[in-house]
Amino acid sequence: MQPAAREDGWHSEPFEPVVRDNRMYARGAADDKGQVFFHALGVRAHLATTGRSAPAVHLKLLIEGEEESGSPHFRTLVERHADRLAADVVIVSDTGMWSEDTPTVCTGMRGLAECEIRLHGPDQDIHSGSFGGAVPNPATAVARLVAALHDEHARVAIPGFYDGVVELTDRERELFAELPFDEREWLRAAFSHATAGEAGYSTLERVWARPTAEVNGIGGGYQGPGSKTIIPSSAMVKLSFRLVAGQDPDHIEKAVRDWVAGQIPDGVRYEIAFSPATRPCLTPLDHPALKSVARAMGRAFGTPVRFTREGGSGPAADLQDVLGVPVLFLGISVPSDGWHAPDEKVELDLLLKGAEASAHLWDDLAEHWQRVP
Amino acid sequence: MQPAAREDGWHSEPFEPVVRDNRMYARGAADDKGQVFFHALGVRAHLATTGRSAPAVHLKLLIEGEEESGSPHFRTLVERHADRLAADVVIVSDTGMWSEDTPTVCTGMRGLAECEIRLHGPDQDIHSGSFGGAVPNPATAVARLVAALHDEHARVAIPGFYDGVVELTDRERELFAELPFDEREWLRAAFSHATAGEAGYSTLERVWARPTAEVNGIGGGYQGPGSKTIIPSSAMVKLSFRLVAGQDPDHIEKAVRDWVAGQIPDGVRYEIAFSPATRPCLTPLDHPALKSVARAMGRAFGTPVRFTREGGSGPAADLQDVLGVPVLFLGISVPSDGWHAPDEKVELDLLLKGAEASAHLWDDLAEHWQRVP
Repeated sequence: MQPAAREDGWHSEPFEPVVRDNRMYARGAADDKGQVFFHALGVRAHLATTGRSAPAVHLKLLIEGEEESGSPHFRTLVERHADRLAADVVIVSDTGMWSEDTPTVCTGMRGLAECEIRLHGPDQDIHSGSFGGAVPNPATAVARLVAALHDEHARVAIPGFYDGVVELTDRERELFAELPFDEREWLRAAFSHATAGEAGYSTLERVWARPTAEVNGIGGGYQGPGSKTIIPSSAMVKLSFRLVAGQDPDHIEKAVRDWVAGQIPDGVRYEIAFSPATRPCLTPLDHPALKSVARAMGRAFGTPVRFTREGGSGPAADLQDVLGVPVLFLGISVPSDGWHAPDEKVELDLLLKGAEASAHLWDDLAEHWQRVP
Repeated sequence: MQPAAREDGWHSEPFEPVVRDNRMYARGAADDKGQVFFHALGVRAHLATTGRSAPAVHLKLLIEGEEESGSPHFRTLVERHADRLAADVVIVSDTGMWSEDTPTVCTGMRGLAECEIRLHGPDQDIHSGSFGGAVPNPATAVARLVAALHDEHARVAIPGFYDGVVELTDRERELFAELPFDEREWLRAAFSHATAGEAGYSTLERVWARPTAEVNGIGGGYQGPGSKTIIPSSAMVKLSFRLVAGQDPDHIEKAVRDWVAGQIPDGVRYEIAFSPATRPCLTPLDHPALKSVARAMGRAFGTPVRFTREGGSGPAADLQDVLGVPVLFLGISVPSDGWHAPDEKVELDLLLKGAEASAHLWDDLAEHWQRVP
């Protein structure tokens, strides 16, 4: 579950969808209930327009409800029911597209490894006058740990972190560079005031094709109003690592554990706990099934589509792994939808375009898929 | 006010004193209600044993109730009522002594400057998949700020921070070194598992005579159970700086502000707010009034006293400044009292020794003070 609460800044109850200005606002409106929903509309449209009583291809609908919790049971479920889930191709709808005007098909998603590290200094909060300057402070230690995460080029400084990373091809960098990227617009969608990141890569390359280490939460000591002159007993940090094709979550977990062990000062104990990881995935640009998705999207939007990747993560790679079939992405969310943020929304017009693309896709796959060698 | 709540780990209500095992437990039992109280007992004992109807010296009792909030009104009050408060010597009871077996007189306290720094990145929490790796993260920025506070020798790295610091004399270092310091015992009292601090100084020198920078609290992003894959909108840190004789709080505030301004990455805004500062103070070892205090303590404890300093802070320096008279310290708290910590206590036997020392002091001052040139 992805927590959301009215007091985070929502203008309506996060789990009670409301429509304002042709947009639906709700936690999950775009990520991912809305995109599950457009397939239901798509199948209805497909049946209504073709007059069929069953879709043109054999459809199996799988709704993964644990993705925001790291999908702890998904891989096991897919493994256990691999026969029942067997398919020629998997369509995943948990991604976005470039913009309303530039429909795109996503070719990959980043993976995700997450951990929480708790540091313990004194056995209780102690007086910073009586003891300050002479014992290790776990809040300082957690800060130094986080500061050491990146080097001066904003590369992740954990030894072994980049092992196996599939580097961008020149063709991919060209395609990315051709997209109508407007930094000011992107920053507006990010609610951010500057870009920053790994030296030598563009913003799109950073969010789509490069692995990251981010702090999702940090805490320790007194955070209330006023001051409290203590050395805190403990401190914590929640880190998440976005992974790209070629990175193995087990290897990353080991690399992080080894690195953390070497960063903790004497007199500070720590625990580190990892959540279940999500693997990265990537579909080659020349994959024939990708063409069906691109054509279906092109028909819905009335314009040829371009190709992107997605910085977020989903359990798609498990399907690819276990079922041994290509995983393709069909998504209609736009960056301004604000996934996980207060007032997350979906554009209703795009939701319907998604339904249309879904409706076309079953036709296209029926017509073209069997011809693929 | 120094916040305290049952859920911090107290075994009884922090603001309802209880006696267990000849100790009184309460927030302020040792710091500082208990030490105010022993003077009331001391005056009563002084009158009872001398048969006087008034103390041997003219006593003015001033109870400062805002010390834990940085004494915002104290200096103004002392300035406004300087005539009424005029005295030959000021006795302050807000310090401790070495141990039950080694009574000591404190010759100085550290000062205190405190600030809270809030960093703002994206205007709201944003998705770490969609944007991670490409925008500045204020939680990372606050961690890097804290990590930069100290250099590799654990010296405070803020330019100008050590300006004017009165260095320890060889005689003071000798006296400190003669105290029966047991590192394991000290660590037990600190609830800590290692010593750490500025290179080139002993633990006692670090807490008594060296300035510090400590994190009292740090926070940002999601700190609840489980994970939330966001780049947080903001982060904060509460810092406190213990100051020693020669350091000027105004200069420290300016040095910190200048330093912080240079540490904040592009795309991150910040605010910094300082609380009212407390000045450091130090009484020279050869001051004649110190001898009266040492004799009074010696009589109460039946053994010659030694000399220490105190790492904590109080508004004593304002009295020295404004009234232009020596400030001397008479305190009976011991390190295990746990100032500001859950289950703060005072030893009742020591509380009564404090009363006894107070009772003797008025006699000694009456007898010796007028002879001082």
